[in-house]
Amino acid sequence: MANKEINVGLIGFGTIGSGVVETFNLNQPLIEDKVQRKVNLKKVVDLDIETDRGVKIDPKILSTDVNEILDDPDIDIVIELIGGYQPALKFILTAMSKGKHVVTANKALLAKHWEEIMEAAEKNQVRIGFEASVGGGIPLLKPLNESLAANKIEAIYGIINGTANYILTKMADEQQDFEEVLKEAQEKGYAEADPTFDIKGHDTAQKLIILTKLGFGVYVKQEKFHVEGITRITLDDIEYAKELGCCIKLLAISTIKDEELEVRVHPTMVDEKHLLASVNDVFNGVYIIGDVVGPVLMYGAGAGMMPTASAVVGDIIDIIEEMDSPITYGPPQTRVTKIKGMDEVESKYYLRLTVIDKPGVLHSISGILSYLNISVDSFSQKGHQKGEFVPIFMVTHQATEKNIQEAVKLIEKLDTVKGEVVFIRLL
Amino acid sequence: MANKEINVGLIGFGTIGSGVVETFNLNQPLIEDKVQRKVNLKKVVDLDIETDRGVKIDPKILSTDVNEILDDPDIDIVIELIGGYQPALKFILTAMSKGKHVVTANKALLAKHWEEIMEAAEKNQVRIGFEASVGGGIPLLKPLNESLAANKIEAIYGIINGTANYILTKMADEQQDFEEVLKEAQEKGYAEADPTFDIKGHDTAQKLIILTKLGFGVYVKQEKFHVEGITRITLDDIEYAKELGCCIKLLAISTIKDEELEVRVHPTMVDEKHLLASVNDVFNGVYIIGDVVGPVLMYGAGAGMMPTASAVVGDIIDIIEEMDSPITYGPPQTRVTKIKGMDEVESKYYLRLTVIDKPGVLHSISGILSYLNISVDSFSQKGHQKGEFVPIFMVTHQATEKNIQEAVKLIEKLDTVKGEVVFIRLL
Repeated sequence: MANKEINVGLIGFGTIGSGVVETFNLNQPLIEDKVQRKVNLKKVVDLDIETDRGVKIDPKILSTDVNEILDDPDIDIVIELIGGYQPALKFILTAMSKGKHVVTANKALLAKHWEEIMEAAEKNQVRIGFEASVGGGIPLLKPLNESLAANKIEAIYGIINGTANYILTKMADEQQDFEEVLKEAQEKGYAEADPTFDIKGHDTAQKLIILTKLGFGVYVKQEKFHVEGITRITLDDIEYAKELGCCIKLLAISTIKDEELEVRVHPTMVDEKHLLASVNDVFNGVYIIGDVVGPVLMYGAGAGMMPTASAVVGDIIDIIEEMDSPITYGPPQTRVTKIKGMDEVESKYYLRLTVIDKPGVLHSISGILSYLNISVDSFSQKGHQKGEFVPIFMVTHQATEKNIQEAVKLIEKLDTVKGEVVFIRLL
Repeated sequence: MANKEINVGLIGFGTIGSGVVETFNLNQPLIEDKVQRKVNLKKVVDLDIETDRGVKIDPKILSTDVNEILDDPDIDIVIELIGGYQPALKFILTAMSKGKHVVTANKALLAKHWEEIMEAAEKNQVRIGFEASVGGGIPLLKPLNESLAANKIEAIYGIINGTANYILTKMADEQQDFEEVLKEAQEKGYAEADPTFDIKGHDTAQKLIILTKLGFGVYVKQEKFHVEGITRITLDDIEYAKELGCCIKLLAISTIKDEELEVRVHPTMVDEKHLLASVNDVFNGVYIIGDVVGPVLMYGAGAGMMPTASAVVGDIIDIIEEMDSPITYGPPQTRVTKIKGMDEVESKYYLRLTVIDKPGVLHSISGILSYLNISVDSFSQKGHQKGEFVPIFMVTHQATEKNIQEAVKLIEKLDTVKGEVVFIRLL
């Protein structure tokens, strides 16, 4: 091992930070063998260095002062694992300005400040690794960026939020309501005390921004695309999906057609035979279609202390091995000429509505659909009680989002229809 | 693009070779953008340069003389796609001796001559890319070797032969016999005229040798491990597997426990809920367990002109980007101290046998099992015709291969048992 020793500084000794420390405890000889150098975890910084994280660590490397990392000229690689926007951004930019390479799992920061961070990396000629930011431990961004480099990417469909996927899986498996499952998920630690971010689709959207940049070379801000969570999904929807041979998944979708890109996050009905239907519980799976390779899927643990640490330390190894090579994240030039509005999206749709069971009701609904060029593929009414409210379900043929939105508005105004019309797009 | 131009020579203008030419036709600008250099497919060599391959190619770059590639000092990377042992080995070693990097899809050659080829690469300080040799277009070897580098690999379970997987899938889906499906697969071009190599497990074994080297750092020759194909699997086995909530897959397995490695290829009963059960038709899937990351799966097209070309050209891009970095294939040191014999393997087993339906038969069979410490988990007899031969199926608890083999021999000797006892291991 004649090569120079590498020193790593870790900012953020939380769950994933502890996983990184534990990975060094477990596999430091393996890592050093792989890169043929000594690799030291030289400093670990956190505001709280008292609480026992349950992992072995030399107390001498702990500090509360981030400058012990940022100002140390011997530290080559900085791992940022504090999350959030600030001071994470400041720490990353400072580290880069001092010629340090950076590894981060911070999808929120990358999604919001992509350009600033990448420009700083280029300007300072340092590398940034962020495999852990999407899909946790799954080899995903590197395969997309490197293994599939001979392909024009045509589509990305991702189940990339473990909490939402756990909830949808449990609802289907245990016939439990959304609220019931959410509570259980919170008790088990699979959902945050405030789960908004996961169940409303924002976490999925941030990760999709990163996937879209790597796959299609274009950086699309979150406010530019449709993001819809899983809070409106009921057990009825899941049961009806089953009857149709489908399950419901929260999908991150980026697809291109004629140089026009569609980017969206929403619950989607997926055929039970599709591989994504087998991505269950807290697991993540990303299905990518390349023009040369066809479809591939990467699957694994999308979150958690050790899986995420696997990706972080994988990035460290990668940076050491390729320290002097230049890197591009995604195709350097994009062939995207337009980001399609949600209005223009075409899909088949599942609709659920509650109507009074009396003659003529269906006639007025089908009139609206027909007026908006929407034809119905299948229809089902649950129960039959004259004069009472009953749920009906239907699946349309291919229709535009614009027309569906319009139809839903008109149908909701009918006095024979109660409450809102729920619709779910089909894959 | 100030960097030096890269010239590529292709030996072998067959199916995959044509896919490589077509990939350059489709995506040369993308490839050049990615590596920031001109990349020329300078020469394509084959014995037959007359037959139309259905892809556009400049006739001036075609030649029947391999030395136009091997002796050309301007060619930086040689793609070997002729398959087989010789002259492929000679071409690869000659190319390396002249300082050329090599890309190959030749699993047979790598499996047999791993050490010689890797030594030549190291001696000549060139790189060798072989992503296409296992799992076709699936990003697999690079993720295993690089993305998961922070992990000690604990297990690899692969469905890596498309022909065998197609046959098993069709048998289950269409309730067709092995022979019937094989014939159909041959007509569709999914199986070779002589399918021995695929259905007897040899192709799977060669790929497993490569996976085992990358995962566990140890090169195990094919004659050192158990290789069993799918020719004994009947529709009855598949139907009974279904009743048990399982399907049957031809698996390549490498697992480590206490530094002892098990390497084997055989049909395996896989729980329908396992992700590998969803890897159907000609698709491939490899399930890898790392000590840090847990389980991951990579899935996609394991063969075919374009998917395999995707991996070949991905390797070319990789070599250009990392031309000057050293590389190790797999952990440089292995922690394997022993390759376990098949005798020592432990598993649950499914047994199928044909017996005369008369009192006492089961008693003699269960006597043999009990004598060999094998306990039965479930048992089923199909039909009931006194004095006639009827099939019975059973599943054992965990037992050693040695005892099962012994039990099978003893049971086959009973005069109430007809023909051979088929057994299938459970995952």
